[in-house]
Amino acid sequence: MYSLSKRCLAELFGTFWLVMGGCGSAVLAAPHIGVLGVALAFGLTVLTMAYAIGHISGCHLNPAVTVGLAVGRRFPFAEVVPYIISQVIGATIAAWILYMIASGKDGFALSSGFAANGYGAHSPDGYSFTAGFISEVVMTFAFLMIILGSTHGRAPAGFAPIAIGLGLTLIHLISIPVTNTSVNPARSTSQALFVQGWALEQLWMFWVAPILGAILAGIVYPFLAKDK
Amino acid sequence: MYSLSKRCLAELFGTFWLVMGGCGSAVLAAPHIGVLGVALAFGLTVLTMAYAIGHISGCHLNPAVTVGLAVGRRFPFAEVVPYIISQVIGATIAAWILYMIASGKDGFALSSGFAANGYGAHSPDGYSFTAGFISEVVMTFAFLMIILGSTHGRAPAGFAPIAIGLGLTLIHLISIPVTNTSVNPARSTSQALFVQGWALEQLWMFWVAPILGAILAGIVYPFLAKDK
Amino acid sequence: MYSLSKRCLAELFGTFWLVMGGCGSAVLAAPHIGVLGVALAFGLTVLTMAYAIGHISGCHLNPAVTVGLAVGRRFPFAEVVPYIISQVIGATIAAWILYMIASGKDGFALSSGFAANGYGAHSPDGYSFTAGFISEVVMTFAFLMIILGSTHGRAPAGFAPIAIGLGLTLIHLISIPVTNTSVNPARSTSQALFVQGWALEQLWMFWVAPILGAILAGIVYPFLAKDK
Amino acid sequence: MYSLSKRCLAELFGTFWLVMGGCGSAVLAAPHIGVLGVALAFGLTVLTMAYAIGHISGCHLNPAVTVGLAVGRRFPFAEVVPYIISQVIGATIAAWILYMIASGKDGFALSSGFAANGYGAHSPDGYSFTAGFISEVVMTFAFLMIILGSTHGRAPAGFAPIAIGLGLTLIHLISIPVTNTSVNPARSTSQALFVQGWALEQLWMFWVAPILGAILAGIVYPFLAKDK
Repeated sequence: MYSLSKRCLAELFGTFWLVMGGCGSAVLAAPHIGVLGVALAFGLTVLTMAYAIGHISGCHLNPAVTVGLAVGRRFPFAEVVPYIISQVIGATIAAWILYMIASGKDGFALSSGFAANGYGAHSPDGYSFTAGFISEVVMTFAFLMIILGSTHGRAPAGFAPIAIGLGLTLIHLISIPVTNTSVNPARSTSQALFVQGWALEQLWMFWVAPILGAILAGIVYPFLAKDK
Repeated sequence: MYSLSKRCLAELFGTFWLVMGGCGSAVLAAPHIGVLGVALAFGLTVLTMAYAIGHISGCHLNPAVTVGLAVGRRFPFAEVVPYIISQVIGATIAAWILYMIASGKDGFALSSGFAANGYGAHSPDGYSFTAGFISEVVMTFAFLMIILGSTHGRAPAGFAPIAIGLGLTLIHLISIPVTNTSVNPARSTSQALFVQGWALEQLWMFWVAPILGAILAGIVYPFLAKDK
Repeated sequence: MYSLSKRCLAELFGTFWLVMGGCGSAVLAAPHIGVLGVALAFGLTVLTMAYAIGHISGCHLNPAVTVGLAVGRRFPFAEVVPYIISQVIGATIAAWILYMIASGKDGFALSSGFAANGYGAHSPDGYSFTAGFISEVVMTFAFLMIILGSTHGRAPAGFAPIAIGLGLTLIHLISIPVTNTSVNPARSTSQALFVQGWALEQLWMFWVAPILGAILAGIVYPFLAKDK
Repeated sequence: MYSLSKRCLAELFGTFWLVMGGCGSAVLAAPHIGVLGVALAFGLTVLTMAYAIGHISGCHLNPAVTVGLAVGRRFPFAEVVPYIISQVIGATIAAWILYMIASGKDGFALSSGFAANGYGAHSPDGYSFTAGFISEVVMTFAFLMIILGSTHGRAPAGFAPIAIGLGLTLIHLISIPVTNTSVNPARSTSQALFVQGWALEQLWMFWVAPILGAILAGIVYPFLAKDK
């Protein structure tokens, strides 16, 4: 067992990589790789980190995951806040470095090109608030079901990073058009801090909906996996 | 061993996720991710669920799989009907939630955009009934050969979800243009219930052909894998 | 150890699936999924079959692989011919069923749309005979190096199907524009039998070059992996 | 333990395959498979080689990886130079064979189509030197974190090639538009030797930045993974 500070550092770096890879591919390469490439990139950040730092911190990289695991009795409530703070700091550092790289090209504009999450007028394909809210709840619910299930003692050992990483890819394949896909309040916060304005105004939803979905899964999965 | 009701709940949720992810990506994101992205999404629903709930219910998510496993002596015939009912219910709940999300965008129309399966005039690329029927039988036959083979006692343990999930991706890469790819009567039923009309009229084929292919594999594989 | 006839049946089915999935995705879906999708499909046929029938026949699905493994002392020379015959039969059955499906769409023409391999005027992007020959030798050499290496006793157990399947995807990503990628004489033969004419005339090269590359790897790898 | 000469031969072949597959897919197939396909190809060269020759040489295929592993106390400093020489030779042989294949098509021109790395006027999307330098340092830093983490004694055994290979895919998904993605001085050198001119002038940066990032990770990871 690593010390809390070591584990928080690992979470900070891992969430840094999630935003650098996921939002980075969206900001720098989306015209080349499309939604499919961005979806793959988000998933691979988690797959790679789960193998690299999973044995240190558990590799949550996401406040909703941390809360969902705590509700599902896999993670101590006492460590939820330090984990979340580390995740938000790591995500924000990534957004800052990504901004430095992205602004090295003529014509870069924060308002249109920084991968923030949104609904209504700021949904990529114009989906309503209700559609976006339902989508974020359902996607995060399923994400936590995958996490809680694939890391269960009866699931085959060692494969969970593949299931979880590619599960995040799948979630982006479904819902990028709806909300640009959050399911992760730290990722949403890091981009909103730079885009400002509408992104900050809509940010609350990308904390509430993912955490709500995660809590539901934290209740449902243990019920499902309990014998008899 | 979990109780039948727990296992049916797991099948219900898993098939929910198959339709939410597979048909969801098609309905919400197909213009962005194309056939390649939809094929990947379908496969990843199965890959993720096989790791998450495989140890609870076996993760069939598909009436043809349940029948094929029963014919191949891997699943008790007595539980085929409750499994299939759970799968159809889960698929239908997913179609309903997907409808709620999809209708949150102006201009959404059920008739053109709900990922139902079809042949002839309703085949994506205009393939005939005969082509569609052959395709569904052959694809489901191969799907069950992959399932029966990769979960065989001599196959390497733990990898079956990768083989089966990516096998379903492969099947979609081949046959989406022909029938929009069913190989799964529960998935077909859930979309047909919303599209109505032609989709309900053609639905029988997407029960008959996949189950026929699955039964064939349930007979062939045990013969192949029997020593001497 | 299974009987030779059971193993040949497994090879027949596996090579059937390689052609049905690889050439099938090219013939039926290439306008939708592109070279990337076809490359993925070819690789996934091998990945899925290696988990499903690898424990029965070793899952060669390819005369060049069978020859390369024999040269590398992993497979008895006495069984090379029955394996190759089974592979060619399975591939040809797949081409025949694929033809039945593909011709269920108006406007299908064998001459332009049946995924045969070619060079010069029949190279997809117009590469010369020499370029095609070098490409086929090098690609099959690397393919056999991957196969011999990932199935070596010191490589991690169970992962070879992933390395080999995705290796075939990689080979297609590189060389589809050059020769439409063979590296597999059985696959080439099955398509040439239907396309006839130029495809049959050029077929000899897709036996000679892959087998030459495979023999080279069968000599080089054992030298490399021998201690001291 | 294999002799140094055997291990260097394995590195030579592995780096040959990295350039043949990664740069080869870019040079021969980029108009068909796009940045997504090229990113996948680069990653799969490493995934396939890590399973095929990882047990022989450790499968570095990259001077920055060799230096980072030495700094992180996973590889003897005394063998850094022979490894790097082998990698550069293997990469250059691949570039030469790739040139032979590519020039077998009318209209091939080295100056525009040989996948060299660049910044400023030679960045694919026109990113500045500073953006390119930051990107290469950060990407190689993260690549080494993934390598050091997924091969750590507490990470699940056997999965590192998947994490590392798909990690390289991810890195290309992010940064191909910025520098055409190096993170590998041997790969950069092999292309610059053929493109000459600007590519040789800018080559120093693709040695300095990746090795700087790798050294940082070689210092940070052991600190992170040390108990207490």
